[in-house]
Amino acid sequence: MNESRDPCTATLSLLTKGLPPSPSHTEIASTDVASRRLDLLAGDVPLPAAVLKDSALRHNSRWMRAFLAQNDVAIAPHGKTTMSPALFHRQIADGAWGITAATVHQAAVMQASGIRRVLIANEVVDPVSMRWCFDVLRTDPEFELHVLVDSLDGVARLDRAGRDSNSARPLSLLVELGVPGGRTGCRTVAQALDVARAVARAAPQLRLGGVEGYEGAVPGDDAEGKEDAIRAFVARMAVLARACAQENLFASDPVLLTAGGSAYFDLCTALPRELAGRRTQVMLRSGCYLTFDEGYYGRRWARIVQRSPGIASLGEPLRPAIEIWSSVQSVPEPGLAILTMGKRDVAHDVDLPFPRWRAAEGSRAVQPAPASWRIEALNDQHAFMRGDHDAMPRVGERIGCAISHPCTTFDKWRTVLIVDDDYRVVDAIATYF
Amino acid sequence: MNESRDPCTATLSLLTKGLPPSPSHTEIASTDVASRRLDLLAGDVPLPAAVLKDSALRHNSRWMRAFLAQNDVAIAPHGKTTMSPALFHRQIADGAWGITAATVHQAAVMQASGIRRVLIANEVVDPVSMRWCFDVLRTDPEFELHVLVDSLDGVARLDRAGRDSNSARPLSLLVELGVPGGRTGCRTVAQALDVARAVARAAPQLRLGGVEGYEGAVPGDDAEGKEDAIRAFVARMAVLARACAQENLFASDPVLLTAGGSAYFDLCTALPRELAGRRTQVMLRSGCYLTFDEGYYGRRWARIVQRSPGIASLGEPLRPAIEIWSSVQSVPEPGLAILTMGKRDVAHDVDLPFPRWRAAEGSRAVQPAPASWRIEALNDQHAFMRGDHDAMPRVGERIGCAISHPCTTFDKWRTVLIVDDDYRVVDAIATYF
Repeated sequence: MNESRDPCTATLSLLTKGLPPSPSHTEIASTDVASRRLDLLAGDVPLPAAVLKDSALRHNSRWMRAFLAQNDVAIAPHGKTTMSPALFHRQIADGAWGITAATVHQAAVMQASGIRRVLIANEVVDPVSMRWCFDVLRTDPEFELHVLVDSLDGVARLDRAGRDSNSARPLSLLVELGVPGGRTGCRTVAQALDVARAVARAAPQLRLGGVEGYEGAVPGDDAEGKEDAIRAFVARMAVLARACAQENLFASDPVLLTAGGSAYFDLCTALPRELAGRRTQVMLRSGCYLTFDEGYYGRRWARIVQRSPGIASLGEPLRPAIEIWSSVQSVPEPGLAILTMGKRDVAHDVDLPFPRWRAAEGSRAVQPAPASWRIEALNDQHAFMRGDHDAMPRVGERIGCAISHPCTTFDKWRTVLIVDDDYRVVDAIATYF
Repeated sequence: MNESRDPCTATLSLLTKGLPPSPSHTEIASTDVASRRLDLLAGDVPLPAAVLKDSALRHNSRWMRAFLAQNDVAIAPHGKTTMSPALFHRQIADGAWGITAATVHQAAVMQASGIRRVLIANEVVDPVSMRWCFDVLRTDPEFELHVLVDSLDGVARLDRAGRDSNSARPLSLLVELGVPGGRTGCRTVAQALDVARAVARAAPQLRLGGVEGYEGAVPGDDAEGKEDAIRAFVARMAVLARACAQENLFASDPVLLTAGGSAYFDLCTALPRELAGRRTQVMLRSGCYLTFDEGYYGRRWARIVQRSPGIASLGEPLRPAIEIWSSVQSVPEPGLAILTMGKRDVAHDVDLPFPRWRAAEGSRAVQPAPASWRIEALNDQHAFMRGDHDAMPRVGERIGCAISHPCTTFDKWRTVLIVDDDYRVVDAIATYF
């Protein structure tokens, strides 16, 4: 990241996967990629390549602006999904309050790229990471940072780190509520209240900024059971927040109340807008709205519009924006094609990728893929695609795949190309995983 | 990669995961990381971090030199595993003939970092990638490149690309033999011989450099069945190579005969050293010897020494060199600890990571992990570690994990720290995935 330039600009090496390698090994600014007028369908881009459809990004941005206008909530989209400053700034333009990070590494990338408010939605425990939190409060006086805490040990550690660093400003902590069988977070409201009191006692190093929960980690036997458990969890977050307010533990105005990943965010809008006379800011953290997918989140979406019909009134649903294109490198036996992509190129932790489009060699026409095509297995650098014997592609044909789980697709790319609906490259973004 | 410097040196941003983030966002040369005298156990390194044990790397290098001296074979280790020029050059120093790549992107990184012989162990089919192969033959006259082909379509495509580029030198192709139910590669010797003849006819753009197979993709019902099928496959590679030699199709001296990943390389040393009076170079491609693991390759190793006792005479086996260290961020209920690492940090496609070491906060003493500890699940940025209720770590404790499958661990890191046996950082390498 070059601080003297627009934070959305990154220097990309022409040795980066997805860009045409240059014999002279030069670099290119991400914002100059468009001027190369690369055309994926004309064969200008080495495959595999990860692309984002510009029209889908723009649609999803409009959708989020409408959603925020419809609901009295803020959003700090989880930046772990894309780890791309250029996309973070698109999300700020969509009305995001700030960006959520999973680690201090991610928060440092965000701060360096000009994001002014970051929520680290995790406990911060190692000495270097704790020190960074207090250092940045001093070196960047306008930067707003919030961190989770779910144990008295955690409070004591951050308190010590704050004293050691002579912080000029208190670090804002959100007490994390969890559930038995869940991930992080206090298991009971009583435990969480104890943690909140310890934070309030640790002034001026620390201050209590709000309450956090991650509803996605709440267990449930089936879809309805999970949704009911999430509603109960969100209600318990409100109970905890009200108790903190009644004891006057919060040192922030408004009080932050945050929950809401990309699969159950609608259920988190029920968090209260005031607590014993104090204003709250209800903040969702959905990271996947911008890129979406037709796998995991696509399936969750059907459920969201079923249980929250107000969402449907916002018009056309979110569009899957990210695709992985590869070439057929071999059709070695009937019904089997080997593609030039593998575990290194596409998510495989929820579903294998879905072959959806084909473009014959030398043709700019994109056709729908036959229904029989499916990815059966991935090796590190190969995909095994099976299909009806009379419907297989030829060597050199280009195959476009939809994906399931944007997070574990983005982290396989240092650059993602943004394309128009004809697969002409109009921009490129850098990632910082 | 900066061409004016040692190819093992990379410029690392201090915003790279695994390095301490700096409020001034400066960069550091990878070869200068050692001068920072970072000490993982003293808390100088943000966690999670990926480390390579220097002593294990040195041991594995010695082992490979002894193996090459014992067997009349060459090795072009598969560079896809680490994609690290600094490790490629260690492998060249171990006696490697060159480095194997899976894609043109990887080959371009290797060529730019000063590797003088590259085998792309895949079909190259997209126009940009084919063009690069011919361009580099012209722009780098000393660079030696070999590419696979397994179809007449593939030969025709490369022939056209060679004509279009007015290549000064022929591109060396190795005809790929496969098996029914396998991955790429001709299914029969007769098909492969047809492809070899087409290559020979496509002079001067193309020339036949040898025969390739990947024994790891040969199916088998059980361990012994797979080994028997691999022995038969290696014998068929020899039949194909002999037929090519008898028809005088090879335009290289020696003729390259290459097979051998990291799990069955010993069975590939049976390839012939001469063919109808022509010299061959038998070349293995084992990519994981340098870093190894105690999961997938550790299990394969037990089988290797059983079936190939000569390997045991080389002394101590390969050592697992790569570890992922993380912190305990929460111990939210009895028997459960949440660690600061997840799918973004460690391989999860073969086995989940194995907790092996612990270091209490503030202590430089590394203890073995209790036998009851196991990683039960990974989220994107979290690990769920279960263990006996009375044996759980505290918040802030450091946990070292061994891994299974180096390839899908390396590709999650842009820098890996090299540490001495006391976890003091002695070097850092960059990766180019």
